[in-house]
Amino acid sequence: MISKHEILNIFGENVRKFRRLLDISQEELAHRADLHRTYIGMIERAEKNITLINMEKIASALEVKIEDLLKN
Amino acid sequence: MISKHEILNIFGENVRKFRRLLDISQEELAHRADLHRTYIGMIERAEKNITLINMEKIASALEVKIEDLLKN
Repeated sequence: MISKHEILNIFGENVRKFRRLLDISQEELAHRADLHRTYIGMIERAEKNITLINMEKIASALEVKIEDLLKN
Repeated sequence: MISKHEILNIFGENVRKFRRLLDISQEELAHRADLHRTYIGMIERAEKNITLINMEKIASALEVKIEDLLKN
């Protein structure tokens, strides 16, 4: 799914990119971020409008800054 | 109110800072961002966990990047 909200696509693609750089599964990222695996999948596919607190959880789990997840 | 989530405080303080630099009211910012005035107040006071799409709306209305609203 491509969201009509480009910013969600950018965020989701960056989450997937950095997750793969760490060579971890969605399940492992979910565990590290204290979120649900299906939620991580929805974020990567830009199917959900993420909140700032969850953006921070994911950035922290990926060992990057929130800003890194917003770069196009 | 000070949120226990520091990132919400940072975001809210930056929204207020850039809004004042533009010398506009919460009501005017709300109008420009197509959000409600009380919502802008809650965001500035870190009382609400904002979503990425609304972060983008506010950044655009303030003529800054989302990243500028995350700087401590």
